Amino acid sequence: MKDKFFNYIQELQNTITSKLEVIDGKAKFQEDLWKRPEGGGGRTRVIENGNVFEKGGVNISGVHGKLPNSMQQYFGVKDADFFACGLSLVLHPKNPMIPTVHANWRYFEMYDQNGTIVDQWFGGGQDLTPYYLFEEDAKHFHLTCKTACDKHNPEFYPKYKVRCDEYFYNSHRNESRGIGGLFFDYCKKSEDMSMQNWYDFVTEVGNSFLEAYVPIVEKRKNSNYTKTQRNWQEIRRGRYVEFNLVHDKGTLFGLKTNGRIESILMSLPPHVQWVYDHHPEPGSEEEKLIKVLQQPKNWV
Amino acid sequence: MKDKFFNYIQELQNTITSKLEVIDGKAKFQEDLWKRPEGGGGRTRVIENGNVFEKGGVNISGVHGKLPNSMQQYFGVKDADFFACGLSLVLHPKNPMIPTVHANWRYFEMYDQNGTIVDQWFGGGQDLTPYYLFEEDAKHFHLTCKTACDKHNPEFYPKYKVRCDEYFYNSHRNESRGIGGLFFDYCKKSEDMSMQNWYDFVTEVGNSFLEAYVPIVEKRKNSNYTKTQRNWQEIRRGRYVEFNLVHDKGTLFGLKTNGRIESILMSLPPHVQWVYDHHPEPGSEEEKLIKVLQQPKNWV
Repeated sequence: MKDKFFNYIQELQNTITSKLEVIDGKAKFQEDLWKRPEGGGGRTRVIENGNVFEKGGVNISGVHGKLPNSMQQYFGVKDADFFACGLSLVLHPKNPMIPTVHANWRYFEMYDQNGTIVDQWFGGGQDLTPYYLFEEDAKHFHLTCKTACDKHNPEFYPKYKVRCDEYFYNSHRNESRGIGGLFFDYCKKSEDMSMQNWYDFVTEVGNSFLEAYVPIVEKRKNSNYTKTQRNWQEIRRGRYVEFNLVHDKGTLFGLKTNGRIESILMSLPPHVQWVYDHHPEPGSEEEKLIKVLQQPKNWV
Repeated sequence: MKDKFFNYIQELQNTITSKLEVIDGKAKFQEDLWKRPEGGGGRTRVIENGNVFEKGGVNISGVHGKLPNSMQQYFGVKDADFFACGLSLVLHPKNPMIPTVHANWRYFEMYDQNGTIVDQWFGGGQDLTPYYLFEEDAKHFHLTCKTACDKHNPEFYPKYKVRCDEYFYNSHRNESRGIGGLFFDYCKKSEDMSMQNWYDFVTEVGNSFLEAYVPIVEKRKNSNYTKTQRNWQEIRRGRYVEFNLVHDKGTLFGLKTNGRIESILMSLPPHVQWVYDHHPEPGSEEEKLIKVLQQPKNWV
């Protein structure tokens, strides 16, 4: 399973970065291969200053070895070995009419002293962070997520949609980071789902990513925008930074366990603003977005 | 003591904001009074888009009531009442040749069920975050800190200088946030120091702030700078954000205990950049700064 999934994310990284380069038409992904001293490594691909993508990363990693102390505490185990691999992506488009998107698909195995698998699970999801809210875009993204989920279990979409809203929440601002999508974790073998079933589900979601996001990019990439709208995007990107640095378990985990900093923090937006006590005008498009972030909606 | 120190920081806020407005010559501090539902409140003063100061805040607060659960755990006590007051300031100048400065002076009291003081202490400090390193500025700032300390105890400056280097450290980057200054906490009654002695020391440091910082601002405020130098400043500001959101106990504490978000996050810089895997040119002024941040120096 680990080889199969690791191969899958390598191919998916190729598929996604090729497609994004075509869409961008100008910038190419810069690739960095890195090794983890304790075992494994990754292939980071970053795009910057494109026609469409101001900054983005589509990264894979596969790491293994002794479970670090901090992770032992987190999982409540001792002296285990582990393998973890995943693909993480964040795209920050230049045009404020195009949403930022984040996705992640990952697989984890833990072993006892004899090298026998004692636990294994999938996790991941994909979610959208618009600066201006186009309801048809939100519906398209969520419908694509739902269609992928429904092929496996009609309960998955409603369940993982709510988890996504709960997870990507800036509690200190009382608002969601974005308009959500899917978030799932600890997807383990059960009566209903074998690990192969979970593999089929997670790869279904992975395969749906371009279908969920690309039509939105194509529709909005030539939209006009003003300096004021661009400022609003940069202010909202500040909330993205706040979530990732204050609340996101994956980011904090990476920062505190000596992960490759540049690969972890590639998720941070290129240009960001913090304005004291900024509030959108009543009745404005900016306020309409905030209202939805304060009260997550059902899009399909 | 609490009334005396609260009066002191109110006057100090007036002194500092008046002086900074004169230096800026354009922008004025905008004042927001706020109340804490559980007791107390604050006076936030923010300056934005000035000639000299791109963004800054000089805030005081005095809060009291039941010690919140999170603080009970932190201090290892149960069901106590508390009073806390302090002045916090952060100034982000526009010109990258002027350093960002941060300072904080605070006083804390804890009470038993009869309202008797069971614990009380002072804390605080002031530290400098340059974008370009002028050794004479670093020396001036540290010498002013040392002079204030030495009037009270010759051991204070070396001790609190090292604590400052240790505290304002971005462990995930293996570098200091800036070139330090002073940091002290839990300054409690001892054989050598009464609370009045600590009051005298903390107010001495508070009174030294303008002397430590203003001459540097005056010397650098008309320096020319390039777009590249400005970009460097914005990239380094990203590290400032990383420290405040990932490591700073005060900020995280505020965010997780329902503090006034806009007063807490006024510390974040106005315009910030994150560039993937950015490294300064070998031998450049930018690299010279990084080397000092990786290996704190003695300035006096």
